[in-house]
Amino acid sequence: MRRKSDFRDVFYVSDGTAITSETLGHAVLGQFNLEIRQTTLPFVESVERAQQVKEKIDEAHRVSGIEPLVFYSIVLPEVKAVINQCQAKLYDVLDALVQPLSKDLNMQPNAMLGRSHSISRDVASYQDRIAAIEYTLAHDDGISLSNLDKADIILLGVSRCGKTPTSLYLAMQFGIRAVNYPFIADDMNSLRLPKGIEPYRYKTYGLTIDTERLVTIRNERYANSQYASEGQCESELSKVEAMFRREAIPYLNTTSLSVEEISTRLLDISGLKRRMC
Amino acid sequence: MRRKSDFRDVFYVSDGTAITSETLGHAVLGQFNLEIRQTTLPFVESVERAQQVKEKIDEAHRVSGIEPLVFYSIVLPEVKAVINQCQAKLYDVLDALVQPLSKDLNMQPNAMLGRSHSISRDVASYQDRIAAIEYTLAHDDGISLSNLDKADIILLGVSRCGKTPTSLYLAMQFGIRAVNYPFIADDMNSLRLPKGIEPYRYKTYGLTIDTERLVTIRNERYANSQYASEGQCESELSKVEAMFRREAIPYLNTTSLSVEEISTRLLDISGLKRRMC
Repeated sequence: MRRKSDFRDVFYVSDGTAITSETLGHAVLGQFNLEIRQTTLPFVESVERAQQVKEKIDEAHRVSGIEPLVFYSIVLPEVKAVINQCQAKLYDVLDALVQPLSKDLNMQPNAMLGRSHSISRDVASYQDRIAAIEYTLAHDDGISLSNLDKADIILLGVSRCGKTPTSLYLAMQFGIRAVNYPFIADDMNSLRLPKGIEPYRYKTYGLTIDTERLVTIRNERYANSQYASEGQCESELSKVEAMFRREAIPYLNTTSLSVEEISTRLLDISGLKRRMC
Repeated sequence: MRRKSDFRDVFYVSDGTAITSETLGHAVLGQFNLEIRQTTLPFVESVERAQQVKEKIDEAHRVSGIEPLVFYSIVLPEVKAVINQCQAKLYDVLDALVQPLSKDLNMQPNAMLGRSHSISRDVASYQDRIAAIEYTLAHDDGISLSNLDKADIILLGVSRCGKTPTSLYLAMQFGIRAVNYPFIADDMNSLRLPKGIEPYRYKTYGLTIDTERLVTIRNERYANSQYASEGQCESELSKVEAMFRREAIPYLNTTSLSVEEISTRLLDISGLKRRMC
């Protein structure tokens, strides 16, 4: 358990979406025993907006009496200058790496070149990603088994083992076209790989989960139902896992994994390349 | 346009999902004129796996004759030590910020405390996020207008202006429960705010898009259709925008914005808090 040892206001400030500042600040702060209150201030592109941000940060300082922590990423020097006057501890999230990289590459950085999370950075890969989301939605939860030749990955498993969020994350974050197909109670008497999926078994993976966890998750949806009963969950899981083994479908237990972890493990196992933009 | 001036192999190496290393490395590299080939190597948790990674990186060095760039984040010192022996330029993505933060806070960092993108870090907020994905899927594309009291945000707009990917991104990244509702051709003669949405207009936002871009996007779906015609697109957009103004629904033009930018702008306008885990 964490000991709550210190309080800090934390601000993520950026002239873009602030997603990079958040991701990094969040990861770094995770290493300290801090109680934090986080505020994200994106699109700080003008001196005016920067002055508003400065007032907000200075106000937090006045109220708490403690210097806030500011993780920021800003290109324009005149906007950056305003942020640098805040009464706070300031961390430029990119600069700490840009400087050594610039030295190692013997190349001057140009902050205007590439904005993270902007459509203009790589239009083709952005459009691929949107198409992947569409494909994945159209192939969620067994809705359709057509066009499986266009799938990057096919996920199988019992209801509520994590297939849908994983598929959407793969599409959203990595531009992966994911199909997911649930086995339901009616399938259980003669469980086999669906005929439509057989030709694509080389890109098919199973998800499974511990019985206890599945019971909890299903009870949140349909409390005290047969569907959520321990007997039903256990039986479905053991039959589906036996099928995965029989059919030599590699599978992954999702019980203690986040959607990010399930997704990146699947990429790792399958050798699929992440498409980033 | 970028000038391709130099080639580098780039590796993202992590004992976790490698999402933080990727996000940061990608943002930093965007400031340099480099032609890069990227490889992500997650879950490097053992000395053995680290040795395999080292071989891979050293092999890239041998083949290209150029030192690869390695962005890494690894907790265990013995695993880190192996990576540090790679014939490459090495960048610890967190360390550059952890050190000054540790000094400013007068607090020792503990890398084991908080792993990014792990379910154990904040179970409640993780479950909120999964629930938000479910809610958002159940309220995609006008499927349902029930339980709108539980929505964080409601998005309106013509077909193919970016509502679905934005809603899913808001849910996936920020744990926001998003409803989206499309206006279709049949609605156009007497366009009004749907009755079910009226009580929730305070959390309702419009998305719009330039005619030319909408024509392109719709043609990708149904080429040369009435639906994709310039006349139809222009008419729908002007009627829907007029309605947004009449009903005082704030709206955003998505033409040149990525899903990340649309989502973070909506959070900014609406004052909704990001839920992160």
